[in-house]
Amino acid sequence: MICDNISTANGHLLFGGRDTVELAGKYGTPLYLMDERRVRRNCRVYKENMDKHFSSALPLYASKALSCKRLYEIVAQEGLGTDVVSPGELYLAKEAGFPMEKVFFHGNAKTDADIAFAMDCGVGFFIIDNMDELRAVDRLAGERGIRQKALLRLTPGIDPHTFEAVATGKVDSKFGVPIETGQAMDFVAAALELAHVDLRGIHAHVGSQVFDSAVFYDTADIMLSFIADLKRELGYEASMLNLGGGYGVRYTESDPAVDIGQELAAVAAHIREGSRRLGIQEPMILMEPGRSIVADAGMTLYTVQSTKTIPGYRSYAAVDGGMTDNPRYALYRSAYTIYLANKMGEKADFVCTVGGRCCESGDMIQENVALPTPQRGDILAVCTTGAYNYSMASNYNSIPRPPIVMLDGERDYVAVRRETFADLGAREV
Amino acid sequence: MICDNISTANGHLLFGGRDTVELAGKYGTPLYLMDERRVRRNCRVYKENMDKHFSSALPLYASKALSCKRLYEIVAQEGLGTDVVSPGELYLAKEAGFPMEKVFFHGNAKTDADIAFAMDCGVGFFIIDNMDELRAVDRLAGERGIRQKALLRLTPGIDPHTFEAVATGKVDSKFGVPIETGQAMDFVAAALELAHVDLRGIHAHVGSQVFDSAVFYDTADIMLSFIADLKRELGYEASMLNLGGGYGVRYTESDPAVDIGQELAAVAAHIREGSRRLGIQEPMILMEPGRSIVADAGMTLYTVQSTKTIPGYRSYAAVDGGMTDNPRYALYRSAYTIYLANKMGEKADFVCTVGGRCCESGDMIQENVALPTPQRGDILAVCTTGAYNYSMASNYNSIPRPPIVMLDGERDYVAVRRETFADLGAREV
Repeated sequence: MICDNISTANGHLLFGGRDTVELAGKYGTPLYLMDERRVRRNCRVYKENMDKHFSSALPLYASKALSCKRLYEIVAQEGLGTDVVSPGELYLAKEAGFPMEKVFFHGNAKTDADIAFAMDCGVGFFIIDNMDELRAVDRLAGERGIRQKALLRLTPGIDPHTFEAVATGKVDSKFGVPIETGQAMDFVAAALELAHVDLRGIHAHVGSQVFDSAVFYDTADIMLSFIADLKRELGYEASMLNLGGGYGVRYTESDPAVDIGQELAAVAAHIREGSRRLGIQEPMILMEPGRSIVADAGMTLYTVQSTKTIPGYRSYAAVDGGMTDNPRYALYRSAYTIYLANKMGEKADFVCTVGGRCCESGDMIQENVALPTPQRGDILAVCTTGAYNYSMASNYNSIPRPPIVMLDGERDYVAVRRETFADLGAREV
Repeated sequence: MICDNISTANGHLLFGGRDTVELAGKYGTPLYLMDERRVRRNCRVYKENMDKHFSSALPLYASKALSCKRLYEIVAQEGLGTDVVSPGELYLAKEAGFPMEKVFFHGNAKTDADIAFAMDCGVGFFIIDNMDELRAVDRLAGERGIRQKALLRLTPGIDPHTFEAVATGKVDSKFGVPIETGQAMDFVAAALELAHVDLRGIHAHVGSQVFDSAVFYDTADIMLSFIADLKRELGYEASMLNLGGGYGVRYTESDPAVDIGQELAAVAAHIREGSRRLGIQEPMILMEPGRSIVADAGMTLYTVQSTKTIPGYRSYAAVDGGMTDNPRYALYRSAYTIYLANKMGEKADFVCTVGGRCCESGDMIQENVALPTPQRGDILAVCTTGAYNYSMASNYNSIPRPPIVMLDGERDYVAVRRETFADLGAREV
């Protein structure tokens, strides 16, 4: 199976040790399942290894991957910080009781209202993206008589060889201020001039779904070297370095399995050595794993509604969800591993496109999927959907969003209830 | 300007005759505006011309383009039918008091629950997509002791030369049953055998954003010829032919302007002549305009939050919305016309990428946009956003969805209120 929290028994697919066919029957489909134990295990891999290998470090859960109160509770219990990218995420974290001092507020287009809201929530750190925001943060902190702790977002100029839409460290990016052009130096100098900005360090995010620590080595080299430049040119020593991102997850058998503990140990050694060589204090290291905290803790269950074979062309299976609950194939042609949950013992010799229920040709879950011949009523499971599925879901075609059911050993419970038709019209006046 | 409901006065952009800068100030941004008079005018173009040119015809508003109660009310007042693609759309239409006998229920993956719900609402017509659904409709209609009126969805095998994601008439489609393979004949024969299905005709949808009636001629030729085949082989005379789709809209100056009235007259003549030649009764013609009813009646207003120029690369302007309220650039690289609403008199010499506020590199509204140099606080207007913006919106990054404000001459009123942070967590238990 694609992940070790998936297994089979009596011809049924099990997830987190639980029978998915029974869960589909109990809660209906489409259905998001989240394996709470896997979320906690993933958190601990980062927390324990970062504590162990770095002089000072904190993993921040990148909550855009899956933002709901129950997740913030779990992540807080595991001792991680979190990064939020909007006041909405901040609101949910606060409602969940997340310790505000461990919240880092991202975003490339923060409004004055967003900034004021975050300050009034007592958010720990702003990650300031640009000069416009820097001025607004100083002004609004001044109005409140505070000094707002902050990092500055820089672009180190690295192409992480990941899909373009998630490649964010390049010089040509909508995020941050480039080092290469000299603008980053001016950005830091400007921040240091401001009375109400308490600059603690710098941030770079080179992309997600990173399988190779070389990307982190390169980012660290550039950022440490820039920290040394700051010390030399401005007399400023950054105490925090946020490397952004996290490691990749396995969507299919062709994705490598990353030993995150081993990789973190190597990155820590690289940073220690680099800091020593450059004559700077070793900064506190932050990372922002999101996908690798929740992706493989998630699974989506659907019910097959129709199948057809067009001779000379291909076969289709249509399910009761689609791009509304998982837009990643429509957006990025993302790969997923798919099982027919109630026919795990049968031969997978029906090669088909799994299409969604939306009235849009691009609404597919996956192409070229080998399944046992599906029939109306069969349960179809899409693995590794914990990240960027619930969080990206829409009501396109006025389709209500599925619930999130958490699995915790013997227990299953609803974290987010199913959306109703009445919910769809609730904002109409 | 890109559409004749857009103009300028005193350096400000007007939409539907109203000052967009004032509206942004009154309602905040991001903000969807809908020009009610334009919606009504677009409805009338189809209704009046179809009434005039066809022996019998009805335009159905394809409500997936924008599904909210107020729109269903307006469309019903204008005498159109509507097509719904889900029980959620049907629910909203019913809540709005839409006459159920003029509702056509689409969808390639209708569940038993969907089918039962639609029958219990008294929906006029099912557009049955596949054999699995055909059997379920017959069974569930039988349980209710009714004969359900229906059309069958067929694929005529036409590539409408539109973007692949909206090209739905090809033989290799997740929708419908192909004529070319002989499967469509079996599909009709099967439907005619069923006691609880009242087959009224056939449907094909060759794609949206069609600028050239040749696509409709080709579709009509194939479908009329198939109707003649049905008469000869099965002794069945279809009384309704649904040609799907509607005409294209102008997103940019390079899109042609279509004279819909003239095109409809030509299509009507083509169908009359084809029916005569084939010796069949001229069927009632249905069309499904969605985009061309609402797209140019919509505009989205944003506030610029930051701008930057990366020397040697490009410039960016970041706004307070993005792929959450308009995912069409991320999905399809869709083109839009953009204005800086409060600087209409100034020279547009700042060429930039308009990026959204989401933490995702692919979150752009448009690239290579020429604007007067934007500053934090400026109002940016994206035109022709009435279709597939609100309806495709998500809460990605936990960003609340904008309100829809309707403009009706001097009056402006909220049709859908702005989503709140509390709404984001409302389903969490």
